[in-house]
Amino acid sequence: MESMRIRPSQFFDSQQPPANLQDIKTRINSFVEKHAKVPGRRIVLVTSGGTTVPLEAQTVRFIDNFSAGTRGSISTEYFLEHGYAVIFLHRQYSLLPYSRHYSHSKNCFLDFMKPDGNGGITVAPQYTPAMLQVLEKYNSVKQQGLLELVSFVDVNEYLFLLREISCSLAKIQERAMFYLAAAVSDFYIPMGKMVQHKIQSGEGALHLELDQVPKILSPLVKEWAPRAFVVSFKLETDPSILISKAKTALARYSHQAVIGNILSTRKHHVILITNQEEKDIRLTKEEQDLGVEIEGSFIHELIERQDRWVAAAAAVEK
Amino acid sequence: MESMRIRPSQFFDSQQPPANLQDIKTRINSFVEKHAKVPGRRIVLVTSGGTTVPLEAQTVRFIDNFSAGTRGSISTEYFLEHGYAVIFLHRQYSLLPYSRHYSHSKNCFLDFMKPDGNGGITVAPQYTPAMLQVLEKYNSVKQQGLLELVSFVDVNEYLFLLREISCSLAKIQERAMFYLAAAVSDFYIPMGKMVQHKIQSGEGALHLELDQVPKILSPLVKEWAPRAFVVSFKLETDPSILISKAKTALARYSHQAVIGNILSTRKHHVILITNQEEKDIRLTKEEQDLGVEIEGSFIHELIERQDRWVAAAAAVEK
Repeated sequence: MESMRIRPSQFFDSQQPPANLQDIKTRINSFVEKHAKVPGRRIVLVTSGGTTVPLEAQTVRFIDNFSAGTRGSISTEYFLEHGYAVIFLHRQYSLLPYSRHYSHSKNCFLDFMKPDGNGGITVAPQYTPAMLQVLEKYNSVKQQGLLELVSFVDVNEYLFLLREISCSLAKIQERAMFYLAAAVSDFYIPMGKMVQHKIQSGEGALHLELDQVPKILSPLVKEWAPRAFVVSFKLETDPSILISKAKTALARYSHQAVIGNILSTRKHHVILITNQEEKDIRLTKEEQDLGVEIEGSFIHELIERQDRWVAAAAAVEK
Repeated sequence: MESMRIRPSQFFDSQQPPANLQDIKTRINSFVEKHAKVPGRRIVLVTSGGTTVPLEAQTVRFIDNFSAGTRGSISTEYFLEHGYAVIFLHRQYSLLPYSRHYSHSKNCFLDFMKPDGNGGITVAPQYTPAMLQVLEKYNSVKQQGLLELVSFVDVNEYLFLLREISCSLAKIQERAMFYLAAAVSDFYIPMGKMVQHKIQSGEGALHLELDQVPKILSPLVKEWAPRAFVVSFKLETDPSILISKAKTALARYSHQAVIGNILSTRKHHVILITNQEEKDIRLTKEEQDLGVEIEGSFIHELIERQDRWVAAAAAVEK
C-alpha cells in the first residue's frame, strides 16, 4: 500500500501553488540575505500550528490537526533570545510569539487596561511589570528585524511555502536550522478529486477517502537544504511506538534530530532522539507549577548540537 | 437513507456529557435568574464558531467547520447595545466580543503599547480614541454582568450545552432569543465507533465514515424552549439552493426566522427569511469601504420581530 503515496515532485506538479507565493519568496529572500551578512548569525525556520485539509473547493468543512501553536510560538521566543533570526511559518490565527502571553480568553488584554480619566489609557499597575518585559522583547526584535511572519491555512499552501523557504535558507548552509513543529496532515484530497460545493447533509452517512501526503522531509534533506540542521517532531498518543517511529524517521530521512512527545504529557516531557542518543528531558512538578517552559531546556540542547554540526563542517573544509 | 439519522434523545443517551456540565448549568441558571428579575430584560443565546468532530478518542485529528466566530462576536456587541443580556456559547479561542477588534495577527495590541519611560505602559495616542470606545463598552458590560461566556470544542459538548442552556432560558418564555450562528457539523463519529489512538499514516489511503448529527432544532423548538424566538442560520456556497433550504428548515422546525447567507458574500449580503417574507439585506459598496457591519442592520430587524412575538403572546394571555 505504501506505493500508493505520491512523490513530492508529482505533488507539486499536480497541485496549484498559493497566489501569494512570489511575494513571500521575495520577502524571505531579502530576510535571508540581510541576516546572511551578519557574521555568525543563524536563521531558524520554525513551523507552527496545524494544517487544514479542505473537503470542498469552496471550503466550509475541513480536517485539521490539533495544535494551537503553543510549542512553535514559545520556541520562537527562545531562539530569538539565543540570537537567532526566525522565520515563523504558522497557521493563520494560531498563537504568535510575545502576543501569545495575552491571547484569547485567558488573560484578555482588555482586562489589563484602564482609562486614565484624561482621554488616555494605561496598563493597570499590577500587570505592568510582566507586560513591560514582554513588550520590550517584542519591540527589540521588531526594531532589529529578527522575526519574519509567514502564515498558511491548508496543507497545500504549507508544502509550497516550505519548499520555497527551504531553497532560500539553503544559501546559509549549516547556519540554517529547520525546526518543524507544525502538525502537518498525513492525508489530503487532491484538487482533481474535490467537490466544488458544500457537502449536503440529509443523505445518510458521509464517506470520505483521503490520499497520503508525500513525505516532504525526504526532498528537504536530500535536495532543498542538504547542509542545514534539521529537527522534526513526532507526536503520538501511544507511548509504546514513539521511539521506534522517531528512529525510523531518522533512518529514512537522514536528518539530525527528532523531538518525540506524547499528546498528554507534551508540556513537561519530551525525548530528544539523534543517531547517537535518546535523551529524556522533563520538568519537575515544581518547575511545572512555576510555569517553566520545557522549550527552554531542549532548544538549548538543539543549539549545542547545531554548534557541533557547524564546527564539523568547518573542520572538513579546512 | 434519511431514516439512518439518530434521534436527539438517542444521541444524548448514547454519548458522554462534558465533565463541566453541572458547573455550567449552575452558572447559567444564576445568570438567567438574575436577568429574569429585571422588567423587560431579554436574554439571547448567541452561538458562535465551528464545532469539531474528533476522529480519534485521544484527539490529534478532527473535522472542523469554517468559522472564526466573526458573525457571533460582532452580533453579541449589537445585542448588548440593544439592552439584551447575552449568553455567548462559542468555540474555544474563537473571536470574542470587544477583544475581537484587536485579536490575532492584524492589529496585534502590542503594537499599540508604549513604555512611558517611568516603568509604566500607555496606549500610543493615535490608537487611544478607538480603543477607549471599545474599552468603555467592555467595562460597562462587565460591571453590569450582561455577558456570560461559555466555550465548547467538539460537537458533542456543543449539543449537551445547547440543551442545558435552552432548558434554562425556557423560564423567561418569549423574552428569550436563540441566535444560532455557530457552524455546527452535520456529521460525527459516535463514541463507540471511534479509534483510541492517533491514526497512523503509511498504510495507504484513509477511509472515514461519519454518521449524521441529529437535527437539534426540532427538540429545541418543540420541547426545550417552545415559547422562545428562534433564529437559525443557513450558510451555503451554491446560491441556487439557499432560499429553498431555508424554507424547508422553517417548515420542518416551525421556528421564527432563518438568516441565509452565501460563503463568499456573507459579510455584505444576507437574506432574512420568515414565514411571511424574504428580505434582502445588503451593504452598499460605500458602506463596506467604511467598515460598516451588516449585523447592525439585520439584528435590528430581528429585534423588531421579537417585539411583535412578545406582544402577540401577551395579547393571547389577556
